[in-house]
Amino acid sequence: MHIRISRDEFYGGVGPIQAVVETKRSLPILSHLLLEASANHFSIFGTDLDVGVRKRLDAQVLKEGSIALSARKLYEIIRELPAASIEFTADADLTATITCGTTEFRMKGLPRDDFPSMREPKAAAIVLDRRLFRDMIRRTLFAVSSDQTRYTLNGVLFKVTQKDARMVATDGHRLAITTHDGDLVKDSGPVEAIIPRKAAAEALKLLKEEPGEVEIEIGENHLLLSSDQTLIDARLIEGQFPNYEQVIPTTATKQVTVSRDALLAGLRRTSTIIGERTTPTTVELKRGQLLLSCINLDLGEARERLDVEYEHEDMTIGFNARYILDFLSVVEAEQVTMHLQDPLSPALFRAKDDKRYTCVIMPMRI
Amino acid sequence: MHIRISRDEFYGGVGPIQAVVETKRSLPILSHLLLEASANHFSIFGTDLDVGVRKRLDAQVLKEGSIALSARKLYEIIRELPAASIEFTADADLTATITCGTTEFRMKGLPRDDFPSMREPKAAAIVLDRRLFRDMIRRTLFAVSSDQTRYTLNGVLFKVTQKDARMVATDGHRLAITTHDGDLVKDSGPVEAIIPRKAAAEALKLLKEEPGEVEIEIGENHLLLSSDQTLIDARLIEGQFPNYEQVIPTTATKQVTVSRDALLAGLRRTSTIIGERTTPTTVELKRGQLLLSCINLDLGEARERLDVEYEHEDMTIGFNARYILDFLSVVEAEQVTMHLQDPLSPALFRAKDDKRYTCVIMPMRI
Repeated sequence: MHIRISRDEFYGGVGPIQAVVETKRSLPILSHLLLEASANHFSIFGTDLDVGVRKRLDAQVLKEGSIALSARKLYEIIRELPAASIEFTADADLTATITCGTTEFRMKGLPRDDFPSMREPKAAAIVLDRRLFRDMIRRTLFAVSSDQTRYTLNGVLFKVTQKDARMVATDGHRLAITTHDGDLVKDSGPVEAIIPRKAAAEALKLLKEEPGEVEIEIGENHLLLSSDQTLIDARLIEGQFPNYEQVIPTTATKQVTVSRDALLAGLRRTSTIIGERTTPTTVELKRGQLLLSCINLDLGEARERLDVEYEHEDMTIGFNARYILDFLSVVEAEQVTMHLQDPLSPALFRAKDDKRYTCVIMPMRI
Repeated sequence: MHIRISRDEFYGGVGPIQAVVETKRSLPILSHLLLEASANHFSIFGTDLDVGVRKRLDAQVLKEGSIALSARKLYEIIRELPAASIEFTADADLTATITCGTTEFRMKGLPRDDFPSMREPKAAAIVLDRRLFRDMIRRTLFAVSSDQTRYTLNGVLFKVTQKDARMVATDGHRLAITTHDGDLVKDSGPVEAIIPRKAAAEALKLLKEEPGEVEIEIGENHLLLSSDQTLIDARLIEGQFPNYEQVIPTTATKQVTVSRDALLAGLRRTSTIIGERTTPTTVELKRGQLLLSCINLDLGEARERLDVEYEHEDMTIGFNARYILDFLSVVEAEQVTMHLQDPLSPALFRAKDDKRYTCVIMPMRI
């Protein structure tokens, strides 16, 4: 194997993929990256068996071949190289040589045969706008449950029909759901999959923010995402995602609209008083006013007054401020609206006049 | 107590001082900051009993008084406040109220009496240029020993005579010494003190980089540094700093001069191959050339070729690359010179043509 590649192109490939690989070294090969040069392209592949990522890089292939190298060491080496052309060779006895300017590295590798294989994409059933797909992940990922005993909640539900594409995540205390209309499915039949948290997070990191498309192929128990030169192969969560539609309140009678930035800043301030145990944050609504307060018996209390649009009767409700902050951090809107019923019913958070993204948050007793 | 202060001024005081205080909470009061308003000024004071820092801030004092507040919580609160004017009050039952715009915090505090006291500066014997003092710390701090059993090496020796001011640090494997000439001592008698690592590091952080002076008062077992509105009170290390002058080689016969940046980049690259155990880096000198190499039996090898000024016979010597990198990271010079004798004798590193800063590094067997 012999390739010529720019340092920046090599680094741009090794960096994100080395972050995916297994660091616990249960299997030594999983701490490696597979480098492969064929007639047409050079690619880097890394996997932890749950998520695999392959990226094709711009390189001049002078001789085909392959080798697996320590992901962390390769990353550290490429990072320190100057922005110049790299000659990379691997010989039959599995020694790789990296030459760049006045520097030369020799590294021992492992054979390609020891490396787990990656699925190849067939015909993708779904093609989505890449930024839309990224946004959908960003808007739901924070609500994924960390409770290992609730296995089906440890990922984001991704559901596509002829009518729309949606993602849903919940941890039982809050639920995030984002829906986009559009004729998205190429062939027949609706599809549904639970994408594990790590795969969704890696997709968010690896898929570029620039305009483009992502091709999505959902198999029996795996997902293939393909975009530009990047291929992500993720094992899906098996099982049934709970019936989430029943928890979305439809009878909220009180609306309050507030500046996203002001609510975010106010909640961040009142949250500074929260100690190690989660203290509820009280939201007190009066005509035209929202009062936030938080009391920590050990430490003190915090109060914040916001001007809002509110026309209904006075009401007081408690929340885990963290859940509202998570929503506010990802929603892109100047104004947000809370839809409330009573202090014990779930509240619904949305950008003002936008039903495509909803966060349902259970209140806390105060 | 009642003061009016800008958020940025308050934050600029709380931020650096809260970093000094005791977080292990062996004594609850040590996790607090003492806030004090007297007729003329408002000050914040924090200490871990080894290092104490007091800073006077610009504030309008409306009523004198004092209170001790949780350092971390106060910091988190002030950090989140908008850039506006803060009203701060503390009442007789030790409740502090912080009001800023639409936000109000109430925090419980502790009385001033529980707080350790700080020394007040008397007549400073030494006045140094502040940037010079900072530079001296920066050039020696990295060589301080972490070995708790070698107590007197756990700090930087600071020695001032009529002739010069110097700082020295060593961990037995390398030694850094920086000297500055000048008529620095106001009154009679040379002084000498071992400043503990933490105090030296805090001084580097707290003393501004801008032009100015630092007044230094060395007592029986403590040091007072005073500069602008900042006062640092540090307990000194007691004991005798070893006789360091004998390890500075005077018989080095071979000089090699090399670009600092090129040697730094080259060593960073060859160091990527070093594993968990410290592998020596080989420095091979030939006429006009320096070859760096590092071999890790588990992983591979790295080689780097540099153009240098070298006129002597060929020579090969091994070093812990980390020690050379530490020196190169702080020395301000385009060219550095290594003074060598033989592969077993200590080597001397300096900026080219500058004897005021020296790093002595013991070689490693290769």
